[in-house]
Amino acid sequence: MSVNILFAAHATRWADYETPLRNALNDTGLDYRLATDLPADSVDYIIYAPNSEVQDFTPFTRLKAVLNLWAGVEDAVGNPTLTVPFARMVDDAGLTQGMVEWVTGHALRHHLGMDAHIVNPDHQWSAKAPPVSADRPVGILGLGELGTACGQALSRLGFPVTGWSRTAKSVDGITCLHGADGLRETLRNSQIVILLLPDTPATQNTLNAETLALLPHGAFVLNPGRGPLIDDSALLDALDSGQVAHATLDVFRTEPLPRDHPFWSHPSVTVTPHIASQTRPPSAARAVVENIRRSEAGEPLLHLVDRDAGY
Amino acid sequence: MSVNILFAAHATRWADYETPLRNALNDTGLDYRLATDLPADSVDYIIYAPNSEVQDFTPFTRLKAVLNLWAGVEDAVGNPTLTVPFARMVDDAGLTQGMVEWVTGHALRHHLGMDAHIVNPDHQWSAKAPPVSADRPVGILGLGELGTACGQALSRLGFPVTGWSRTAKSVDGITCLHGADGLRETLRNSQIVILLLPDTPATQNTLNAETLALLPHGAFVLNPGRGPLIDDSALLDALDSGQVAHATLDVFRTEPLPRDHPFWSHPSVTVTPHIASQTRPPSAARAVVENIRRSEAGEPLLHLVDRDAGY
Repeated sequence: MSVNILFAAHATRWADYETPLRNALNDTGLDYRLATDLPADSVDYIIYAPNSEVQDFTPFTRLKAVLNLWAGVEDAVGNPTLTVPFARMVDDAGLTQGMVEWVTGHALRHHLGMDAHIVNPDHQWSAKAPPVSADRPVGILGLGELGTACGQALSRLGFPVTGWSRTAKSVDGITCLHGADGLRETLRNSQIVILLLPDTPATQNTLNAETLALLPHGAFVLNPGRGPLIDDSALLDALDSGQVAHATLDVFRTEPLPRDHPFWSHPSVTVTPHIASQTRPPSAARAVVENIRRSEAGEPLLHLVDRDAGY
Repeated sequence: MSVNILFAAHATRWADYETPLRNALNDTGLDYRLATDLPADSVDYIIYAPNSEVQDFTPFTRLKAVLNLWAGVEDAVGNPTLTVPFARMVDDAGLTQGMVEWVTGHALRHHLGMDAHIVNPDHQWSAKAPPVSADRPVGILGLGELGTACGQALSRLGFPVTGWSRTAKSVDGITCLHGADGLRETLRNSQIVILLLPDTPATQNTLNAETLALLPHGAFVLNPGRGPLIDDSALLDALDSGQVAHATLDVFRTEPLPRDHPFWSHPSVTVTPHIASQTRPPSAARAVVENIRRSEAGEPLLHLVDRDAGY
C-alpha cells in the first residue's frame, strides 16, 4: 500500500519542491503518492507551511506526521487540531553550506579582483595577477557555527584566517582572538573582514567610524550576518574615502533594502538579497523525506516541535 | 659580513619584487644587502631574468649562484659566462595555488549567480537562493597536478566532481572517468565544466559543436587551461543558443586576445587576461630566498638547471 503524501505548503512552492521531493522519495525505495490534492482520509503525511490553506487537521484521520518546510513554527504550534507529531525544518545543508559558499565565493571574488573582468567595457588586457591567498589575511568576526565553518573553508583554501569572538575560543585552522584588544588586532590585520556575529545590543555598530579606520587601507567588507552590525553611514564614508575598497552586503537594517538607500547606487557596494544562508528545496526536501523514511521504518523523527516550549 | 644580492631582473620588476624579497630575506635572519646596483666583485647572488641587462657574468668574481625569476631558462642556459649554479623558478605556490583560487572563485561565482548582483542597474531584490554545491555537479577535463588540485578543492566545498583523463586515474574525492565514453558521460553530467588539459594534437577542440551539445542546457564553461582546447565558433554558437549560459576564459588561441575577437563583446563571456596560474612576487620571492638560505647554510640548491638537458 502506498504512502500518501499531501503537499500543503503554499501553492507557489510546489514548482520549486515537486522535483526535489520526488528525487528524494525515489531514493528511499518507498512506494508513494505525492500530490497537492488527495482525499483527506487517505493522507499519511502532510508537507506543510504555516501559511497553508490547511488549518483544520480534523479530516486527516490516518495522519502520521506533519512536516514543516519552515524553521519557524510559531504560527502553527498553537493549532488545537494539529495533534500528530509535528517536525520543524532544520536544513543544515542549506543554512551552513549556503553560508560557506557565499562567503568563500565573495571572498575569492574580491581577492581575485573579478569585478574588473566581469565589467570591462574598454576590453582592458592587464595581466597583473593578484597575490595568492597566503598573502591575503582574512578576519571573521563571530565564531559560532557559521563563522567557524566559513573560517575553516577559507583556511583550507590557504587564506590566513583570524577569528574574533567575545569570549575566548579555539578552532583548528583559525587564529582565535577575543575581547576588545583582540577585535582591534583582528581588524588591523584583515584585508577582508567578514561579519558573522549575532545581532545583540553589544554587537550593534561593531563596524563604525573608529573600527573601520583600523582596517588596512583598501580592505573589503562582507556582511552576511546581520544588518545592524554596521553603522551604514560610517561605511559609506569609508567607501567614499577608499579606506574600504568594496562592501558586499547580504543583510540590511530594513529588508528588502529600500529603493532610495544609498547602498543601491554606490559603485563600491554589492547588494545580495539575503540569500547567503537559506533553506534550499533540494536539501529541505531531503530533510523532509528523511523524516518520512524514519517514520515508515519505525525510527524516531528528527526535530519534533516541543509544543510546551513553542518551538 | 653581509650577503650581497644584486637584483638584475628587468628594471620594471623591481617595484613588484623589492618588498616581497626584503620580507622573505628578513625572515631568514641573514645579514644582507639587496640592491639593483652593487660593485660586481662584491656580489654573492644575482636574482635574474634572461632579459636582464646583465649578459656577461665575468666581472662577478665571487658569485655563488644565479637565481632565475622565470621558469623558462632557454635564453640563458647557453651563456658561456654563466658558470656558477643556476636555478630556475619553480613557484608551485603561485602556479598551483593561483589556479585553485581562479577555478574555485569562478566556479562559485557562476554557481551563486553573482553577476546578477554585481551588475544590477534596476536594483532588483530577488531572493531566490541557488542550489547548494551538493546539487551542482562539476566536471574537470584533465587530471594532472592542476586539475587534481582544483577538483579536490571543489570537492572539499561540497561539489560532486567528476574528473576525466585520457587514461584511467584514481583521485580521492573525485569520480574518475576516462576514454571517449568517459568524456561523454562527464560532459552529460557537468553543470560547470573546467578545462585543464594540456595542448596536444589530441586535445585540440575538445569542446566542439558535438561535445558542447552533450552538456546540460545552461552549463558554464571555465577555460584556464589552453586556448586551442575550444572551438571558438562552436562555443559562440552554444552561447547564442543558451546551451552554454556563460563562459569564463583565461587562455586564448592568440594572446592578448585580439581587440576584434567576438569574445570581448559577447555578453555571456568573461575574459581574464591569462592570470589564473602565474608566478606571484611574494611566493616567487620566497622561492628565491629559500635558495639563498640553503646556499648560505651549505645545503643543496633546489631546481638547479641541467645545462646539458637545457632546462
